Amino acid sequence: MSQEKKHRTELSTRIRTIGQVIRCKAAVAWEAGKPLVIEEVEVAPPQKMEVRIKILVTSLCHTDIYFWEAKGQNPVFPRIFGHEAGGIVESVGEGVTDLQPGDHVLPVFTGECKECAHCKSEESNMCDLLRINTDRGVMIHDERSRFSINGKPIFHFVGTSTFSEYTVVHVGCLAKINPEAPLDKVCLLSCGISTGLGATLNVAKPKKGSSVAVFGLGAVGLAAAEGARIAGASRIIGVDLNADRFELAKKFGVTEFVNPKDYKKPVQEVIADMTNGGVDRSVECTGHIDAMISAFECVHDGWGVAVLVGVPHKDAVFKTSPLNLLNERTLKGTFFGNYKPRSDIPSVVEKYMNKELELEKFITHEVPFSEINKAFDLMLKGEGLRCIIRMGE
Amino acid sequence: MSQEKKHRTELSTRIRTIGQVIRCKAAVAWEAGKPLVIEEVEVAPPQKMEVRIKILVTSLCHTDIYFWEAKGQNPVFPRIFGHEAGGIVESVGEGVTDLQPGDHVLPVFTGECKECAHCKSEESNMCDLLRINTDRGVMIHDERSRFSINGKPIFHFVGTSTFSEYTVVHVGCLAKINPEAPLDKVCLLSCGISTGLGATLNVAKPKKGSSVAVFGLGAVGLAAAEGARIAGASRIIGVDLNADRFELAKKFGVTEFVNPKDYKKPVQEVIADMTNGGVDRSVECTGHIDAMISAFECVHDGWGVAVLVGVPHKDAVFKTSPLNLLNERTLKGTFFGNYKPRSDIPSVVEKYMNKELELEKFITHEVPFSEINKAFDLMLKGEGLRCIIRMGE
Repeated sequence: MSQEKKHRTELSTRIRTIGQVIRCKAAVAWEAGKPLVIEEVEVAPPQKMEVRIKILVTSLCHTDIYFWEAKGQNPVFPRIFGHEAGGIVESVGEGVTDLQPGDHVLPVFTGECKECAHCKSEESNMCDLLRINTDRGVMIHDERSRFSINGKPIFHFVGTSTFSEYTVVHVGCLAKINPEAPLDKVCLLSCGISTGLGATLNVAKPKKGSSVAVFGLGAVGLAAAEGARIAGASRIIGVDLNADRFELAKKFGVTEFVNPKDYKKPVQEVIADMTNGGVDRSVECTGHIDAMISAFECVHDGWGVAVLVGVPHKDAVFKTSPLNLLNERTLKGTFFGNYKPRSDIPSVVEKYMNKELELEKFITHEVPFSEINKAFDLMLKGEGLRCIIRMGE
Repeated sequence: MSQEKKHRTELSTRIRTIGQVIRCKAAVAWEAGKPLVIEEVEVAPPQKMEVRIKILVTSLCHTDIYFWEAKGQNPVFPRIFGHEAGGIVESVGEGVTDLQPGDHVLPVFTGECKECAHCKSEESNMCDLLRINTDRGVMIHDERSRFSINGKPIFHFVGTSTFSEYTVVHVGCLAKINPEAPLDKVCLLSCGISTGLGATLNVAKPKKGSSVAVFGLGAVGLAAAEGARIAGASRIIGVDLNADRFELAKKFGVTEFVNPKDYKKPVQEVIADMTNGGVDRSVECTGHIDAMISAFECVHDGWGVAVLVGVPHKDAVFKTSPLNLLNERTLKGTFFGNYKPRSDIPSVVEKYMNKELELEKFITHEVPFSEINKAFDLMLKGEGLRCIIRMGE
């Protein structure tokens, strides 16, 4: 089919579906920890300030696994997971003015209402209205789900639910991006990669020629390293308990590797010895409390900045001597790399388009939507970084 | 005596003393916690990179009391305390090029060598060579004291020992200031007031119209409040266990007062309730670990910054949930308000000269040098803020 004919067919399909329930395929999690089941679901039209989008490509992130396993968290099932994705607007609900059918978008698990104190602050991206809520399985407009199977509601996940051919998202959780950008690459920017990249570029802000330690060399940590590489750091020290990660990490600019298991002394002392007193910046991407403390204590006094990214156990306690702070170290945390989804993510897509940011190296696997459970298996085994899941295949 | 005649007499005195031992009065602490004794001491000429100065006025700071009491610290006696002062250069040692006899200076307990990584960093003031050392009682050049009585050495304190009519200080610990500035006011900038002021202006950096909580309304805390006032904060919340402090604190811009003893819930929750989720900035000036934790947890998520100033017990442990950090709060510590003594303090003196900064309100008492023990009594009783001690009276 010619491009033009394809476009016309898509357009007429879109026009036909506007205001109608769409029937499509979705991967439903019926129970915690059980394989997803591809089902035919009904997707209701978008309501006030909502947008219905056609998902073309999605990816799997640890946060999906974490809430799918539901070990300790509030179990919300049946549910459609998925929050790293790229899609095209099918239709918009009442009050949506800055998106229209055909726009290319990345859904984001946290939003930007542009009205609250956080959205109005230059420093925060923790929107009061649309901040991540992992317990809520419904849309905020009417506290109902837009997904159903034979009338029985299927719950949403973090307002995105991208493991579905169509999904409904609040307009504040959609970044409108360059339509030239390949969605099967830039979809990674809707969660993990932006989180790590922004932690370095927006929060740690290493200077050219400086030293940066990155704790945890998974996708988020390697994105933090990629940020350090882009910022021109001269030493990027990767810290991980798995030595196999070092070879891959070199592609992301990591110059040195430390495995805490190889030393008797605390890793913060090892790093201080390697760097004449400590690194200039550190970024913690594991969420383990001991790594958080090490990441803070390994930065140089006088100017060191440590940035926490990884999400800890809810009962974890961060402990350190206050003297480590009084010696002019800074401790910060970040959420989604301090990016505001609507205002900032389009420019991160441009960083990829102008070849400043490399995304291909994060993609280690690809599966068709019908084999989505393979992506879960790969992540559970710790294999690879990101698995692209192509919808409609 | 006419000004000109006085000047000529001073000049000839200076010329006579250069290279000679000077005999003068000093207040010697012979034992921990015992009243100082005014003695005649010998002050040796300045050696390499040292400067001998005539102290005109000094003040008393808690740190003097702390090391004079020597409860738990290494006792170094006999010793000449004092580190908040103003003086005039009498003579300079080998290698000193940027000071000359007659220059007005403030001695500072921590230095700036201008050569080390810290001095070369824009962010740090923790000079490797001249960073505060409370255990050292000698000069770094030859590890000897410049003070003696009948040949028996009397130890220095933090490189300043300003409770003496003459003292010897490393050139890196002297800020050369505007000779028009009244030393009996600007002497306060050589320690406590700069520490609090800089914590706010250089580290917390509140925006115009923002809210700032200050924990501890002693001289340092009130200087932090003064910084918030200068920065244009619209709400300055003073926190102190002593309600009597509030009346005085109003002069320093404090608009509201919280006494943690008046509430059953933690003070961080009280402040969050008062400020719709937390203050924009907080500055902790007590050194009590519980206040440090409260000061951190009372700042707003998304953009709040807490700055620790007060020096804690050496075994204190700072504990908080890492989620408080991941919600985009920042925790920093500061030392001497992040001011570099030689590069920055002259401009703080100018802030006083152009009436931006008010110093008079910190001065609640004055005594002649012969009554220096009265200043100790006042501080031990918690009366007033700063007591000016005039030398040569």
